[in-house]
Amino acid sequence: MYKKVELTDVESLINIVGKQQLFFNDEIEQEYAHDELKTVKHMPEVHVIAQNKIQISQIMTYAYSNNIPVTVRGSGTGLVGACVPIYGGILLDLSRMNRILELDKTNMTLTVEPGVLLLDIYEKVEKEGLFYAPDPGEKTATIGGNISTNAGGMRAVKYGVTRDWVRGLEVVLPNGKIEKFGGKVVKNSTGFSLKDLIVGSEGTLGIIVEATLRLISLPKHQASLLVPFKNREDAIKAAPELIKNHVTPTAVEFMEKQSLQYSETFLGKKIPHNNFEAYLLLSYDGNTDQALNDDIEIASKMALELGAIDVFLVDTEERKKGIWTVRGGFLEAIKASSSEIDEIDVVLPRSNISNYLAYVREVSEQLNVRIPYFGHVGDGNLHIYFCKDELSDKTWKEKIEEGFDLLYKRAFEYGGLVSGEHGIGFAKKKYMKHLLGEEQMRLMKGIKDTFDPKRILNPGKVIE
Amino acid sequence: MYKKVELTDVESLINIVGKQQLFFNDEIEQEYAHDELKTVKHMPEVHVIAQNKIQISQIMTYAYSNNIPVTVRGSGTGLVGACVPIYGGILLDLSRMNRILELDKTNMTLTVEPGVLLLDIYEKVEKEGLFYAPDPGEKTATIGGNISTNAGGMRAVKYGVTRDWVRGLEVVLPNGKIEKFGGKVVKNSTGFSLKDLIVGSEGTLGIIVEATLRLISLPKHQASLLVPFKNREDAIKAAPELIKNHVTPTAVEFMEKQSLQYSETFLGKKIPHNNFEAYLLLSYDGNTDQALNDDIEIASKMALELGAIDVFLVDTEERKKGIWTVRGGFLEAIKASSSEIDEIDVVLPRSNISNYLAYVREVSEQLNVRIPYFGHVGDGNLHIYFCKDELSDKTWKEKIEEGFDLLYKRAFEYGGLVSGEHGIGFAKKKYMKHLLGEEQMRLMKGIKDTFDPKRILNPGKVIE
Repeated sequence: MYKKVELTDVESLINIVGKQQLFFNDEIEQEYAHDELKTVKHMPEVHVIAQNKIQISQIMTYAYSNNIPVTVRGSGTGLVGACVPIYGGILLDLSRMNRILELDKTNMTLTVEPGVLLLDIYEKVEKEGLFYAPDPGEKTATIGGNISTNAGGMRAVKYGVTRDWVRGLEVVLPNGKIEKFGGKVVKNSTGFSLKDLIVGSEGTLGIIVEATLRLISLPKHQASLLVPFKNREDAIKAAPELIKNHVTPTAVEFMEKQSLQYSETFLGKKIPHNNFEAYLLLSYDGNTDQALNDDIEIASKMALELGAIDVFLVDTEERKKGIWTVRGGFLEAIKASSSEIDEIDVVLPRSNISNYLAYVREVSEQLNVRIPYFGHVGDGNLHIYFCKDELSDKTWKEKIEEGFDLLYKRAFEYGGLVSGEHGIGFAKKKYMKHLLGEEQMRLMKGIKDTFDPKRILNPGKVIE
Repeated sequence: MYKKVELTDVESLINIVGKQQLFFNDEIEQEYAHDELKTVKHMPEVHVIAQNKIQISQIMTYAYSNNIPVTVRGSGTGLVGACVPIYGGILLDLSRMNRILELDKTNMTLTVEPGVLLLDIYEKVEKEGLFYAPDPGEKTATIGGNISTNAGGMRAVKYGVTRDWVRGLEVVLPNGKIEKFGGKVVKNSTGFSLKDLIVGSEGTLGIIVEATLRLISLPKHQASLLVPFKNREDAIKAAPELIKNHVTPTAVEFMEKQSLQYSETFLGKKIPHNNFEAYLLLSYDGNTDQALNDDIEIASKMALELGAIDVFLVDTEERKKGIWTVRGGFLEAIKASSSEIDEIDVVLPRSNISNYLAYVREVSEQLNVRIPYFGHVGDGNLHIYFCKDELSDKTWKEKIEEGFDLLYKRAFEYGGLVSGEHGIGFAKKKYMKHLLGEEQMRLMKGIKDTFDPKRILNPGKVIE
């Protein structure tokens, strides 16, 4: 159905990007066949590094008229195969489009190319006293990838998700046309929100070539509380209470002894007070020491009333770094602990998390599979990992199939959705189809066909 | 092209909603032919009051198979004709679907029917210590209407717009199917964001029959600052500085002597300190007296450094009410001051507001038309009113035509958009088309045709 990439195509593409920016067939490195989780694999026919939006427009115009599929890739840190070129074709690599174009202090916006890394954004704006609040775990992800999956992160409790921080996008459509959606404006009621349609569309509707992000002033002070509880239930039950009582935490993370130990072992470092069953890790920010201290005091008192065993203030840089490094190491630690892993990224109403995690435990025992998890309990987004360990390939496949079916089914019964922040990509398509049903799939396919009538952009993903 | 409503249709509709809920031909009150601004007028053929989503689904199924156009109406407080049934057909009145369905304190959501008024939402949640932050001027608007235009309001500076507060929607599609988009969840990366497509689509893609709104805890204290400046330029220049310096105001409103006087005259009440040329009216909130006082002190000091003549603290309930009532009376005052008015609702990058308003003054003089304005200078959204006064109908039409062309053209040059919060409806279609261009119109039309292939829902609006 798609045209195979031939030498004449390669020549045409070289004319656009130059010889150094193109790798054909055997020249292509193996890592471009998969993302970070490696559950989906397929080699591209040609790996093309784009350097500016004009090139991207030309490449798309060429691909569109020649019916060659194109899959966009940033840092490749995704977990659902969204950047894997499962139909081959062109892998369009935007990682070198990594210039920060403008920091506009009056309008409080940052305009960037899609390949800029999250960590470079923080560095750029924070030294100017400004703040880009979304805080996904993977700091070497590109902003283009973050926008494409509507990445969430830990600070969503107070500051929302990536979508809330995108003011405007410049996008190359599958037909090569360059369009601007939104702008440097705070409000917008000018037609259907095409910007919001691009956010979270995982590279299937258009290619983000420029993004204008919202900034706010950087909170001057921040501190965390490590709060141990007798058990999971107590900890999770306390979370919504801590969120609603006038002192909004920036983050509310849930950890159990097990995940903590994996991470400590992996990193070779221990956190203080590590001998409890379950924890909430809460963060607060404020503009004066006094205001922050007041908040922390209110929150601490409330935590104790809600059954916390103790409250440990994490205020020095060293302690903060220690604990958040261990928290941040969960995924890496779990990955390192098993020959292979697969993951579920459901998001649930906060009220159902405790019951849901009890069910995860049940499924783990029932299937006899190790299923560690951790979660952004403040926003209801859980990361649940199936570990292959010593299972045979065949058994592993069966266990995942069965376990995923059970866990998604229960999540949907609880008012949950397939993905809180990792997206659908290739790996989660059937669960989304099951949740959303025929009519919503019809709507999404109609939208896809409007943007991409030849279905050449990231084919086989999300809705196909 | 559409089927006219006949007696057999009326009977079928009566079977769905009951005789008391339907008005046909001469029974229909004149007010249902227009919205608040009355610039667009057309009578419906039948006025149908729906009481629940099942009825709406049945009505749409009937209308769809019979090719009868349907236009949804809430309180009719819009300003661009979005609720005017310009092709006749069914006017579907949702104002009686005004039940608050659930306040969920654990998930901090409020689930409502579309006809609930904004003021009823505030009343319901604030007495529970919770906060729905969007603050559009018109408090008797329905939440369905607010979502349909992605209403903004004054607190957008700190808290964002309606879109940011909608977690989930239940929608009846033109074909009668009932679908849920989003849910009680904080994060969502599960396919294209159909929820965000419905928000701001002005009743052209689907009918909102239930909305789940995000709540936060109610800030315990708030105060305003009335800050006079020598002139417009100084005031507007100070606004972005006041926003970015670590103390984020909830609202930053700009007022000039003229609009203030209109409002004072109209309301028959005066505000204190009303003899200055230009003002910023700033609001702040906080959870402790101390924190709020600290913020106010920082902001006051900064305002004086930025050239403010004085800073008046507005902290008593009486003063607050006085000043915000006058501010809130601007639109009514301007309406009352002229036989007819028309309006422009552009949104601009904050940095260009001062120059833009100078241009508005210029155009006013050039055309010899009175053009008062006021603005949410904190978020770049301006409300600019053309007043007919003593002009003949013909001259009035010409002046609007010419003036609007000039002002939109300049707004676009400044990176502005057609509408910050009032929407496109019928009245602003040509300006949107001009701004967004052919390709974006093609995309929006494709989306429309996916949702509504027979184009029976609110025809003639936004994209047609």
